[in-house]
Amino acid sequence: MFVKNCWYMAGWSHEFNFEPLVARIFLNEAIVLYRATNGRLIAMEDRCCHRLAPLSAGRVEGDDLRCLYHGLRFGPDGQCNEIPQQPGKPVSKVVRVRTYPVVEKHGAAWIWMGEPARAVPDLIPSVIGPDEGPWSMLPGQMTIEANYSLLNDNLLDLTHVAYVHRNSFGRGKEDQTAEFAGIPSVTTRLDNGIRVERWMPNDLAPPYIAEILPGMDKVDFYICTDLLIPGILILNSRIYKSGSIDRCSTAGLEGEEPIYAEYSCQAITPVNKSRTTYFFALGPWRQHEHLKQMYLALGQLAFSEDRAMLEAQQKVIDRTPDRGMMNLAADQAVASFRSKMNALMKEETTEE
Amino acid sequence: MFVKNCWYMAGWSHEFNFEPLVARIFLNEAIVLYRATNGRLIAMEDRCCHRLAPLSAGRVEGDDLRCLYHGLRFGPDGQCNEIPQQPGKPVSKVVRVRTYPVVEKHGAAWIWMGEPARAVPDLIPSVIGPDEGPWSMLPGQMTIEANYSLLNDNLLDLTHVAYVHRNSFGRGKEDQTAEFAGIPSVTTRLDNGIRVERWMPNDLAPPYIAEILPGMDKVDFYICTDLLIPGILILNSRIYKSGSIDRCSTAGLEGEEPIYAEYSCQAITPVNKSRTTYFFALGPWRQHEHLKQMYLALGQLAFSEDRAMLEAQQKVIDRTPDRGMMNLAADQAVASFRSKMNALMKEETTEE
Amino acid sequence: MFVKNCWYMAGWSHEFNFEPLVARIFLNEAIVLYRATNGRLIAMEDRCCHRLAPLSAGRVEGDDLRCLYHGLRFGPDGQCNEIPQQPGKPVSKVVRVRTYPVVEKHGAAWIWMGEPARAVPDLIPSVIGPDEGPWSMLPGQMTIEANYSLLNDNLLDLTHVAYVHRNSFGRGKEDQTAEFAGIPSVTTRLDNGIRVERWMPNDLAPPYIAEILPGMDKVDFYICTDLLIPGILILNSRIYKSGSIDRCSTAGLEGEEPIYAEYSCQAITPVNKSRTTYFFALGPWRQHEHLKQMYLALGQLAFSEDRAMLEAQQKVIDRTPDRGMMNLAADQAVASFRSKMNALMKEETTEE
Repeated sequence: MFVKNCWYMAGWSHEFNFEPLVARIFLNEAIVLYRATNGRLIAMEDRCCHRLAPLSAGRVEGDDLRCLYHGLRFGPDGQCNEIPQQPGKPVSKVVRVRTYPVVEKHGAAWIWMGEPARAVPDLIPSVIGPDEGPWSMLPGQMTIEANYSLLNDNLLDLTHVAYVHRNSFGRGKEDQTAEFAGIPSVTTRLDNGIRVERWMPNDLAPPYIAEILPGMDKVDFYICTDLLIPGILILNSRIYKSGSIDRCSTAGLEGEEPIYAEYSCQAITPVNKSRTTYFFALGPWRQHEHLKQMYLALGQLAFSEDRAMLEAQQKVIDRTPDRGMMNLAADQAVASFRSKMNALMKEETTEE
Repeated sequence: MFVKNCWYMAGWSHEFNFEPLVARIFLNEAIVLYRATNGRLIAMEDRCCHRLAPLSAGRVEGDDLRCLYHGLRFGPDGQCNEIPQQPGKPVSKVVRVRTYPVVEKHGAAWIWMGEPARAVPDLIPSVIGPDEGPWSMLPGQMTIEANYSLLNDNLLDLTHVAYVHRNSFGRGKEDQTAEFAGIPSVTTRLDNGIRVERWMPNDLAPPYIAEILPGMDKVDFYICTDLLIPGILILNSRIYKSGSIDRCSTAGLEGEEPIYAEYSCQAITPVNKSRTTYFFALGPWRQHEHLKQMYLALGQLAFSEDRAMLEAQQKVIDRTPDRGMMNLAADQAVASFRSKMNALMKEETTEE
Repeated sequence: MFVKNCWYMAGWSHEFNFEPLVARIFLNEAIVLYRATNGRLIAMEDRCCHRLAPLSAGRVEGDDLRCLYHGLRFGPDGQCNEIPQQPGKPVSKVVRVRTYPVVEKHGAAWIWMGEPARAVPDLIPSVIGPDEGPWSMLPGQMTIEANYSLLNDNLLDLTHVAYVHRNSFGRGKEDQTAEFAGIPSVTTRLDNGIRVERWMPNDLAPPYIAEILPGMDKVDFYICTDLLIPGILILNSRIYKSGSIDRCSTAGLEGEEPIYAEYSCQAITPVNKSRTTYFFALGPWRQHEHLKQMYLALGQLAFSEDRAMLEAQQKVIDRTPDRGMMNLAADQAVASFRSKMNALMKEETTEE
């Protein structure tokens, strides 16, 4: 049901700074996270091996976590190092709970739910975090009552922007927005995902860009979305002077200098088969930092629109689970990503 | 679980006049209804064939319905006639959704959930609608969290009036009301249902009738209920001068002229196996039109009493689904109607 | 899933004095209880045999109970003695509902859910009720969303007091309370249960006892818990002058006179597999009656702490039902009681 041998975003780093214990569910496994005395994040199964009480109802004691039902204390490696009922006696090695590799990078905590030996930090997706690079972003998150694969589908088919986001990104101009759906896109397979690119020459600039770039009513747009396994989005959006795209058929990340740019990194983390956490950060170039709040608000509005549609779609699927989806000619990206994911899940199942 | 090849009441006609799209569930199938430009009702499965988004979250465009996830547009025949992602290209015939026959008659919309070729409008039950015939009725409806068959049972055994409706129809006179249960009834098989008749000579008239007919404290009552497949009730209630029944053993719809009469049409439409919509209209002769609000209020009170009992009964059944009902000697009508329904369901299952 | 051939506490006697009908669920069976004209409690299945309506929506008429759907009336033996639809006709013996033995004793009503012939009143546990013996107790109860076996486990392993009750019984003194977990206990098998005893010499008296016994800052404690099949707790707690335990190695119920004592009787009654009613009464010696309200309040606080832990534990179990518990060396009492219960359930299943 899930690809396990990969890094999932467990949360923005700051989410683990307020309470000593954070209880989360990832890939249908209950996990408790806490910071050790040196600040390192520790992730343990949220279930005492003794009577199955949740460890997230427990207490952090230094680097250890004590269950507050009968008092068993576990070290950061998951090994029980004190059983109060048998003071002075050595604790058997079998009294232990599972731990999970966690690494903080790019302003986020990443967790590995699969085989620990394969948890190489270099495999963490090379997103740009909220406080990194040339961007000025604010992070956010949202819980969506839908299977993660519906979120991946959504991100891989941006034609939905023309309909779902007609009132947010489209600013209510329905006819104009509808045209976006007809813009051709180019899909490329990446090693660990799918790239979808769109070029829109001589298009109307949104008002907040027109303010920054006075006189530039019409501009060239380039949008590139990379969706990486298991559901990490890197969205690069660039604006060029009108006419640039004609001069440079492969405009975008290389060649011509853009006059404006936006960036977003997003992460889809399954809670269970019908609930998903959607993490996102988005914003403009650092020189336009004053726009970052506007970007977050716009993102939250738009992602709420996605949420409404995704949850409605999930309800239809739950009612009639045997009814399959129909792929259209324009759905190569969706089909290809689902096929990659299915192959990985099959591989992992066979290995087990 | 349901008889499919018959007309079900989908709603009172006026229910489809307020919002452009109405989402309903009938027989566990999600349906979206909308009026075409000429006012005709169209019923479609409420699920886009592409990504399974609900079409009821879409937009009516003339006679068409557009899905607002990725913009596919469907005609009144269910055929997709525009895919925005592939402008200018012909749309394959397989890109379509199911439609359902709908006909408006007797002030209500009727839907056919079975084989469309068999959806003959003449099969619509010949009820008298709220604005038809000699009656002055107001329509209403109620959602009941119980299987439709419990509602059918309820309507076929009016002895429950003596207990369930002791405070509404019985006006709190418990002893007097209890006598109603002992009145003998005559059950007759109809081509497409069951008729149950009761004669009550020289009985006390309810106060609102005594006001209309001064001096007539004691009257003869005749009550006739026809329950038609799959759950359409026609209730004729007549009052005669005391002594009429003695003179005319087959009093009722023919023979002696009544001095007062009431009529009710009701329709039981399954939402799913544990939820049912109960439609009803009831009222007196048109010359006593001023009583129609009283009738509706009394009906709503009484049907709320039914709802409480039916939902309690359903909960007992859900707790112990293997415990069967016990038919008493007086339960021929219930047993006979259930047997007719079961035969039809078996027939339909065999045909498939 | 349940041991059936034993007495379960159905409620405190006073709970059946306010409403004519009380609907309860015991061992996943819906029961209606009412008092006959002579005050005797009658327990019937809460389901009319006719159309499966709940009898708890009915009406007590003398010693009988009438269903208020179609009016069938049942005697205290469960036999239907009136069918209003067939006045004057004899009622068949098959028209009946099941009844259950109920006995009131020790201030409580006890119900037998198994084979009626084996319901010997002498088998009712010899607890001391709220109004009996030398104790001054107030009764209470609580619904807990957890399987009854988790409550039994909880009562058999009082080391949880050190952690779960650190703020109630432990009065927030965490270090001191933690020591309680390390106190050795002695487990003894009883004919119909398990006894666990603890001796704590020269320990700090709680403030309410220090007030009663001025100058006695340090005292000897003795705690004895008997958990009887299927989940009846008798808790005797005694305080002795410091030094008594040294003089008398088998201190407790015999030998040395205590200077203070507390008693509690508790009963675990399964509602269904995931919900349990927890009945309790607790208090001091009658000469310290003014403390009884304090005891009830303290008990309610502490049992709410148990409830939070038990419900959290149940949720973990529901999420991962295949994950078994791990018994530690200190868990003989828990293991032994579970084993007794399992043997009884197996025996009953084999008999059926």
